[in-house]
Amino acid sequence: MSVTDETQVAETQGAETQGAQPAPAPVVSFGTDPGRYRHWRLSVDGPVATLTLDVAEDGGLADGYELKMNSYDLGVDIELYDAVQRLRFEHPRVRAVVMTSGKERMFCAGANIRMLAQATHAWKVNFCKFTNETRNGIEDASAHSGQAYIAALNGTAAGGGYELALACDEIVLVDDGSSAVALPEVPLLGVLPGTGGLTRLVDKRGVRRDLADVFATTAEGIRGEKAVAWRLADETAKARDFAAVIERRARAAVGRSARTADDGAAGVRLTPLRRDTELAADRDAEGDVTRYDHLRIERDPAAGTATIVITGPAGPPGSVAALHAEGAAAWPLAAVRELDDAILTLRANEGGLGTWLLKTEGDLAAMAATAGFLAANRDDWLVNEIIQYWKRTVRRLDATSRSLFALIEPGSCWAGPLLEVALAADRQYMLDGQFEDAPVPAGPARLRLDEFSLGLLPTSSGATRLAVRFCGNEADLRAAQKAAGESLDAAGAARLGLVTQAPDDLDWEDELRLVIEERASFSPDALTGMEANLRFAGPETADTKIFGRLSAWQNWIFQRPNAAGPQGALRRYGTGQRADYDRRRV
Amino acid sequence: MSVTDETQVAETQGAETQGAQPAPAPVVSFGTDPGRYRHWRLSVDGPVATLTLDVAEDGGLADGYELKMNSYDLGVDIELYDAVQRLRFEHPRVRAVVMTSGKERMFCAGANIRMLAQATHAWKVNFCKFTNETRNGIEDASAHSGQAYIAALNGTAAGGGYELALACDEIVLVDDGSSAVALPEVPLLGVLPGTGGLTRLVDKRGVRRDLADVFATTAEGIRGEKAVAWRLADETAKARDFAAVIERRARAAVGRSARTADDGAAGVRLTPLRRDTELAADRDAEGDVTRYDHLRIERDPAAGTATIVITGPAGPPGSVAALHAEGAAAWPLAAVRELDDAILTLRANEGGLGTWLLKTEGDLAAMAATAGFLAANRDDWLVNEIIQYWKRTVRRLDATSRSLFALIEPGSCWAGPLLEVALAADRQYMLDGQFEDAPVPAGPARLRLDEFSLGLLPTSSGATRLAVRFCGNEADLRAAQKAAGESLDAAGAARLGLVTQAPDDLDWEDELRLVIEERASFSPDALTGMEANLRFAGPETADTKIFGRLSAWQNWIFQRPNAAGPQGALRRYGTGQRADYDRRRV
Repeated sequence: MSVTDETQVAETQGAETQGAQPAPAPVVSFGTDPGRYRHWRLSVDGPVATLTLDVAEDGGLADGYELKMNSYDLGVDIELYDAVQRLRFEHPRVRAVVMTSGKERMFCAGANIRMLAQATHAWKVNFCKFTNETRNGIEDASAHSGQAYIAALNGTAAGGGYELALACDEIVLVDDGSSAVALPEVPLLGVLPGTGGLTRLVDKRGVRRDLADVFATTAEGIRGEKAVAWRLADETAKARDFAAVIERRARAAVGRSARTADDGAAGVRLTPLRRDTELAADRDAEGDVTRYDHLRIERDPAAGTATIVITGPAGPPGSVAALHAEGAAAWPLAAVRELDDAILTLRANEGGLGTWLLKTEGDLAAMAATAGFLAANRDDWLVNEIIQYWKRTVRRLDATSRSLFALIEPGSCWAGPLLEVALAADRQYMLDGQFEDAPVPAGPARLRLDEFSLGLLPTSSGATRLAVRFCGNEADLRAAQKAAGESLDAAGAARLGLVTQAPDDLDWEDELRLVIEERASFSPDALTGMEANLRFAGPETADTKIFGRLSAWQNWIFQRPNAAGPQGALRRYGTGQRADYDRRRV
Repeated sequence: MSVTDETQVAETQGAETQGAQPAPAPVVSFGTDPGRYRHWRLSVDGPVATLTLDVAEDGGLADGYELKMNSYDLGVDIELYDAVQRLRFEHPRVRAVVMTSGKERMFCAGANIRMLAQATHAWKVNFCKFTNETRNGIEDASAHSGQAYIAALNGTAAGGGYELALACDEIVLVDDGSSAVALPEVPLLGVLPGTGGLTRLVDKRGVRRDLADVFATTAEGIRGEKAVAWRLADETAKARDFAAVIERRARAAVGRSARTADDGAAGVRLTPLRRDTELAADRDAEGDVTRYDHLRIERDPAAGTATIVITGPAGPPGSVAALHAEGAAAWPLAAVRELDDAILTLRANEGGLGTWLLKTEGDLAAMAATAGFLAANRDDWLVNEIIQYWKRTVRRLDATSRSLFALIEPGSCWAGPLLEVALAADRQYMLDGQFEDAPVPAGPARLRLDEFSLGLLPTSSGATRLAVRFCGNEADLRAAQKAAGESLDAAGAARLGLVTQAPDDLDWEDELRLVIEERASFSPDALTGMEANLRFAGPETADTKIFGRLSAWQNWIFQRPNAAGPQGALRRYGTGQRADYDRRRV
């Protein structure tokens, strides 16, 4: 992870205009590897990996704060995300991951408060979103990759530190008379635990809600047997027994693991992504373009759009063995890594591009064959990891606060995981027919539903995007499902309700220009709220609650003077002055 | 409904301190009756009632706006709430309710924008909460009282006007070439539809989410057959056929109704509540006390508390016939009406009282016998209505942004619906033993679980409060359920996890003083967010989404400069100036 010098790209980002001046947000890159980690150590011993948090105090992503007490900022979490990903792809034999601290008596103090105090509202919200996605990713590794996480709390876990533990399968707290688990956000900071803590307390760990209320208002936290009795931890252990208890639990987790890779399996190395940004010559008239191997981002700052174009595969891998051999260069893995990186960097750095236009280029049959290959070989550990990665990445789109329009044009390849990208969008526009003035006319655009849309890439509620789309409308859902395997033209896709509109060549350009202009004329906040509510129709899970409910409350609280105002708790924390609250309830 | 002159009571309410000065909020009373309605007409013709919205432009609850185009403010909605309640209690024969407009070509334009523009943040949030509860109450009448609602849209239904229609079972839209349904909040006002519209579109009506996106960004709305094709309405009818179509649908709804009252059933008149407020002599040292027949509110402005004391019944009604004869004077109905009124008036008028202490006084056996009587006779239409009213009222507590502590002391009667009041609280404190200095020692406090906690009063997620309390902890849930019918002392209740803490007489006062002081020292916003998240553990429904997710997003948006700032859309609406948005996404 590093702060790049792409400051030109990020000129739409800046300090808030409201209230005191927060520091300008740094431009963030999400690429890193264990050799460059400053805050985590990753070690692997047979089927058990250990992730050790040992934060470099001077390693903050921005100036103005020190990462004391193993507290974290986005940079620390980017390394954690990288490690969790690498464990899944590079370490097929690992079946249990122990997460612990390299510091004395402090597992992790949570998100750095000075960082939060100086951050813009948008930065705080985006930071919480990414940390939530990373913690959900830990649970996903446990559920779908057979890599169980054990939080070995060899010291106090407070705030986001305890929320990290809550994302693990098991929590062991050292019983040393002082180490505690705590969620001190409400009593000390006037905000909520920002990464799912309240939801996981009750929905995941079954902490009684009145005890959760006491716990989340007790700044010093709870330790020892009481933490176990209240279900805040699974076990406590004296310091002298601690290593043995963790080892026993790790061995048991290894024994229970459903991970399919055999002991001789070789991992796939996640090599650095190629990502080149070509700066526009005349930045008033045109936007920068970023190119990956299979994806490019075309920016139009005046229209407020980023066009994300994914190039499809040439064809499926020749065999599972060939896929393994190709590794990170294979399209199914390379393309999703690039899409993930594109989503993350645009989200973090380019808030002014409020509408994303999603496009694909390539051969539909080749994409369909690649999707079929992946679906047929899903029992292979690497194929499974690739599918799960697509699942998480399309879920990132679901949780992205940008308007998403899929543009389905001739020469595109909307099938398999790419079709789910289209279905994640708020609207789908499909050209009916061809572009009359195309230099080399491609056939009319077609799209194709397959197993990726029928169940391989469920949304975070567990329902498929098709089921969410046809929420409560079983006949339409079944009709769409029955069309799996067919290449549908615009008329067919429209008849099945798979696209929002299917203009022809005469109307296409005007129609799109109008909806893009219209979107840019709306309040971005209202759009964010509207999209979040419409995207998560149907059932709810802890995941959707974390994104839909908890985050919305936190966003609200982050805006309130009681937290973020000059006399608010976030701003006064550590100054020796107490927050001065407006005590009226809203 | 009237604005009272209890301004002293409401001195903690006032204008916001942030931004431009909103108008001070009026003090609100929730008592009204059809003879005093200014905005609705209620007529009953056999099994079909008609509710006609005909808003008096000059009848706003506060100064500074006119209620044009059948737009509404809280006052209009208080009348609607009253009418829905009276239909259930006073009109047992009614099985279908037609909701229509008394204006030409305008069903309802939604919440009044000038009212919203001048209101404080707290007022807007509380207004939306009440309107949401009223619309959920309409759906509850349909589901549990066999009174189906038919929205007869004889003109345009926009914003909150269409959301009112969405709360009905059926929507018929006149096909006159101009009348439309619309949710213009996002495009025109930079906020969300505030009363469940987005959730009901997708989760209730099954509108496809991309079409919902188009619809909710199309200011002028959608009319005619397209509204039906998109599932926004069930049917359109030409003006000449409109009355016949509505009549046909009303008759069909009557035929399907599960309402049990027979044709000769007499209703129970909801007589005005007695409510006297005794102003404190020295308002710095003591608080005002409000007395109803079975409930009193004791205020302590310095501590920031309102103590709500409910007096239990003397005993169960002698028979179902006796209950009918006693009508609104019968404890089961009188007490819940008073509790409902107390919750609503405290919420609307006294934001500075951030912690509510919930107490009961009375005979446990009498309360238990009353609860048993109600449970045994739930097939009677009136008993059913009383139970459903308790259900909705305890749900109001769940959605109340105040810290709720139940204090379980000697001489109390925590059984039946009252025990659910305790379980709705964030914490339960139960005295272990007796007060040593009590002039007349009562026996130790006891509480009693019964059918009211086992299923009669589910939360809005459908789960019981016990199930939410022991979320994911089946053994504890079963142990508590098995204790139904027992009178549990503090030790027994603590062992079963039904109380948070059970201090003895030595510690009671200090313990409570400390937790009350502690609560008052926290950010009220953070408490609101924390409580909302912990109270709604477990499953989700459209109702919980409306309160938990949609409201939280709306609260956030209501705080954003893009909506509420001087250049924001809410403030600029109707001025001829367009909102000036900060276009960065958060």
